[in-house]
Amino acid sequence: MLDTGTSHVDDIGKLLASRQPGHSLPAPLYTSDAVWRADCEVIFGRHWIAVGVACDVPEAGDVIALDIGLASIIIVRDDDDELRAFHNVCSHRGARLVPPGRSVVGKLVCPYHQWTYDLDGALALAPHMGLDFDRALHHLKPVALRDVAGLLYVCLSDNPPADIEELAAIMEPRLGIYDLRNARVAFEQDVIEEGNWKLTMENNRECYHCAANHPQLSLSFHAADFGYDPEGLTETERAEANALLDAYASYEEYWHKEDMSFAAVEHTVGWVTNFRTQRLIIAGLGESQTPDTRAAVQIPLGQADKPWMGDVHLWGINSWNHVMSDHAVVATAVPIGPGRTLVRTKWLVHADAIEGEDYDLTNLTSVWTSTNNEDAHLVALAHQGAMSPGYRPGPYSQYTERALDEFASWYVARMQANGYSA
Amino acid sequence: MLDTGTSHVDDIGKLLASRQPGHSLPAPLYTSDAVWRADCEVIFGRHWIAVGVACDVPEAGDVIALDIGLASIIIVRDDDDELRAFHNVCSHRGARLVPPGRSVVGKLVCPYHQWTYDLDGALALAPHMGLDFDRALHHLKPVALRDVAGLLYVCLSDNPPADIEELAAIMEPRLGIYDLRNARVAFEQDVIEEGNWKLTMENNRECYHCAANHPQLSLSFHAADFGYDPEGLTETERAEANALLDAYASYEEYWHKEDMSFAAVEHTVGWVTNFRTQRLIIAGLGESQTPDTRAAVQIPLGQADKPWMGDVHLWGINSWNHVMSDHAVVATAVPIGPGRTLVRTKWLVHADAIEGEDYDLTNLTSVWTSTNNEDAHLVALAHQGAMSPGYRPGPYSQYTERALDEFASWYVARMQANGYSA
Amino acid sequence: MLDTGTSHVDDIGKLLASRQPGHSLPAPLYTSDAVWRADCEVIFGRHWIAVGVACDVPEAGDVIALDIGLASIIIVRDDDDELRAFHNVCSHRGARLVPPGRSVVGKLVCPYHQWTYDLDGALALAPHMGLDFDRALHHLKPVALRDVAGLLYVCLSDNPPADIEELAAIMEPRLGIYDLRNARVAFEQDVIEEGNWKLTMENNRECYHCAANHPQLSLSFHAADFGYDPEGLTETERAEANALLDAYASYEEYWHKEDMSFAAVEHTVGWVTNFRTQRLIIAGLGESQTPDTRAAVQIPLGQADKPWMGDVHLWGINSWNHVMSDHAVVATAVPIGPGRTLVRTKWLVHADAIEGEDYDLTNLTSVWTSTNNEDAHLVALAHQGAMSPGYRPGPYSQYTERALDEFASWYVARMQANGYSA
Repeated sequence: MLDTGTSHVDDIGKLLASRQPGHSLPAPLYTSDAVWRADCEVIFGRHWIAVGVACDVPEAGDVIALDIGLASIIIVRDDDDELRAFHNVCSHRGARLVPPGRSVVGKLVCPYHQWTYDLDGALALAPHMGLDFDRALHHLKPVALRDVAGLLYVCLSDNPPADIEELAAIMEPRLGIYDLRNARVAFEQDVIEEGNWKLTMENNRECYHCAANHPQLSLSFHAADFGYDPEGLTETERAEANALLDAYASYEEYWHKEDMSFAAVEHTVGWVTNFRTQRLIIAGLGESQTPDTRAAVQIPLGQADKPWMGDVHLWGINSWNHVMSDHAVVATAVPIGPGRTLVRTKWLVHADAIEGEDYDLTNLTSVWTSTNNEDAHLVALAHQGAMSPGYRPGPYSQYTERALDEFASWYVARMQANGYSA
Repeated sequence: MLDTGTSHVDDIGKLLASRQPGHSLPAPLYTSDAVWRADCEVIFGRHWIAVGVACDVPEAGDVIALDIGLASIIIVRDDDDELRAFHNVCSHRGARLVPPGRSVVGKLVCPYHQWTYDLDGALALAPHMGLDFDRALHHLKPVALRDVAGLLYVCLSDNPPADIEELAAIMEPRLGIYDLRNARVAFEQDVIEEGNWKLTMENNRECYHCAANHPQLSLSFHAADFGYDPEGLTETERAEANALLDAYASYEEYWHKEDMSFAAVEHTVGWVTNFRTQRLIIAGLGESQTPDTRAAVQIPLGQADKPWMGDVHLWGINSWNHVMSDHAVVATAVPIGPGRTLVRTKWLVHADAIEGEDYDLTNLTSVWTSTNNEDAHLVALAHQGAMSPGYRPGPYSQYTERALDEFASWYVARMQANGYSA
Repeated sequence: MLDTGTSHVDDIGKLLASRQPGHSLPAPLYTSDAVWRADCEVIFGRHWIAVGVACDVPEAGDVIALDIGLASIIIVRDDDDELRAFHNVCSHRGARLVPPGRSVVGKLVCPYHQWTYDLDGALALAPHMGLDFDRALHHLKPVALRDVAGLLYVCLSDNPPADIEELAAIMEPRLGIYDLRNARVAFEQDVIEEGNWKLTMENNRECYHCAANHPQLSLSFHAADFGYDPEGLTETERAEANALLDAYASYEEYWHKEDMSFAAVEHTVGWVTNFRTQRLIIAGLGESQTPDTRAAVQIPLGQADKPWMGDVHLWGINSWNHVMSDHAVVATAVPIGPGRTLVRTKWLVHADAIEGEDYDLTNLTSVWTSTNNEDAHLVALAHQGAMSPGYRPGPYSQYTERALDEFASWYVARMQANGYSA
């Protein structure tokens, strides 16, 4: 309250209203501390935010603690095998219950005064509080949690948006065959990007920058999948673009036969829970996002035993995912400050796949570890620019940056719908 | 002025008014930058603040420079053996006169342009200022200083609270026998706690957390001294609590005979200068807060030659002290920022006690160096919790956290009395 | 916008109005974040700011990127040998175009999406933007640049102050003989001073602090050049001061004969572009600011082949320069934050002078590298003092700190003229 200030609501509202369609956001929406706090409150506080994967907490008593903006939460599997999320805050004096990262616990015991909670959040023990103390009033504060085909989303609000059901209805059938709930996290990479989280998301939602910046990723990505100026192609590029169209015709026939949904679904402006999904062809030899574009893992995910299943990509408000027959890459972006964003990426493989035997870890991870590091550099450059008085909102390409325009429009609409109107 | 802003006065007033009795403070009172500045202004600016011990500046020309919030002050013993305090700011261009820590000087000479002050703060020399320059107008700005039995308090305000006299009247007789003014600082430890100073003080004012967190301190502390739920004791705990009551009966008879005051005195709500004192029994073998609970120093403090004198504990606004027959532990807590607090602890022994001969330094210091480090961890956890939107003010135990409730009520009242009312 | 806040304009206006003539500024004008932002906006945003030397970018395609407050700019020599300055911000998504420091480029290519600019700032290439995209609307945003005898000034405003012409008219003839445009940067030193930029400038505009703090510089500086209290001199000092007056009489006759302008020119209160210049006698053997006061470089600058030319000193809003027959020292001060200032110093020698042969680098640079480090310490002390509630604006010496009084008055007037009035 104190540090945002009611006077800022008006200022932020004016900034949002001043955003021009087709252009990047006014600078303070990327750089201001007050806007960052408003983003934490509205976007990260009242929307479904991707936080990782169910297979990170496979057993009862497994706990993960992580931050979402200023909030610290825990995700725990309780004794009935149910996943639950709570604020990582003791109901007594507010101490942080669980340290960051993974833990295994019998009960949740506060290190300060040993208030003890069951895994369902009920306060089981509170020493020295007296006979008339009502423990039921001091349950851990729950956080809404949703497991969509093994991908976890939480919402810090007491009224989480209902349209998470749409996301679930579309993604559960598409992802079911990969059985991500029973996969295993083979590797995790944290990258801190020195930029606003919206620049992180914009960067991820276009591949205009890929050719010059992502030599590895470009081997398995068709840049044309992310748009191009039809009038601006060289002969070679035009031939490639047409070849890709032909390839989609063949692939889609095959996917259709195998009953694998592939059509693009986009929920952006007009929706609360922003996402986009589509099944994409992998370039090169077509199997996986690896340096040689072949599958990196010998054992397929779930029942995904067809190497031509392509890449089920899924973009969310703060996440991107690529689910392939042999492995999945699940990334989340969480703001640490106006100009700092944590990108956490997890590589999922079949639970039985053994490192060194069924896959080589470097081969599995090098495309996206490299890509993430390259992107961190670009996001930092973009943030530095936005900090400068020389910055003006620039024009998005209608061909290669349409998704950014929609993300920006969605962002403005969501902030306005949550009280930040001029 | 600029960075607090008059608009914050209102917001802080509302927060203070919203505090519920029996509960910890609303989160921004622990975490906000504006509240921290208000605390510096009101609590650390207009109250008597503990800053250390007189025996740190034993000779004329001895100087200690230290910070109190945003202020830097110096404590100096002048040529007439009088202790004085000044702002550590040259009257010319404002340069810091003396570097942090201890110095020995003949005069106070500003390193910038050699303005030179006598030890009583008078400007003795100011080159190039001309004949009509009135040096008397440029005396060092004095800070009110009070030496209570060798413990030093300063007040940055021009109208220091009068009830320091009550503290002096009660503590001078209780502490006189220990002759702290002529003791020696055998060791000093600085710990930076990553939490608000009020969390540091709350943590110190309860021992609810001791059993699980302070294995060493618990050997010489009776946890029961700091309250317990009479209905919640095990058989063993009840037996111990009763044994302690019996022990107090015997000790108090002895103390009474030896003319050693022991009764608890509490000045909290309703007072300006907050303190609590009581003579406590030391657990175990009963002599001192050491790993084996025996005296660590062969030479007693002053005339304190009875090993059963217990522990004269004294809590202040920003300090805690334990004075025992063989040594004293004097700790002060000073805010560095909303979430950073410097805890400086000094161990005092008889001036003639020789390290390695009359005491082993590790034996002397290990209980409180360990305890301070353990507390720093707990205060950080509490601050992290208060930073989270999941934090709600929690209930204090009426048995073990009564002193915290009173400290919080005192704090709210003091801020309101100094202009922060809604 | 958001982080300065319109409510601050009023507060800053009141602070400026409260400044007392003859005294240093009220503390928040040195320490407040809002004032720092206002300084960036007004002083560094609407005045001519020194940024270095033309000979740093001698060839077409040479680029220097540097920060001025929150702005990043580039200085580039284009294919027509013209010097140009631009905001270092791509017109597309705002990414920083060029990394800090020196580069050599053919075109300016944004690393993000390869938007490509000619060296005159014209957008030459913008892939995927479509046929109807008007590149002319996306020229790099230019920054006003002025080369005064090889010293570079930029102004971030679209309406740069006209009185740069006065500076040029006075300095071009005085500096022409040194041919700084064709000199070479032999050494560069960056020092970060932990203080407000105005304290950096105040420190530079007096030599009251030199005797006690700058043992090396004092060998070549006549302290008396920067004022003294005529009533406060010792016999020896009076003799020295009179000797200096006599020396000036002789030197000025010589300078006059050689047609070297020497008279002091001061543009302070009443002017926009603040500067002061004068030809000073170098002390000791009189040739250069070196440890032995002899020329450090065998080849003179330009046609400056008379060792008795003295020191053409030039103070600016954010710069100081000493131009001597054998070398020049060019320093700029740029705020990084309210309490952090980058001082960048360049040592210029004749382009043909070879290190180790025509000069010894340590001999050339040691006076000012030492002086800068010593000053950084003093500025930090002054800033620490200004942070303290014990700070009060202190009196400037009418003899040795007149230039500071004028700088402070100029600063207040410039801020008031740009909207910061109470």
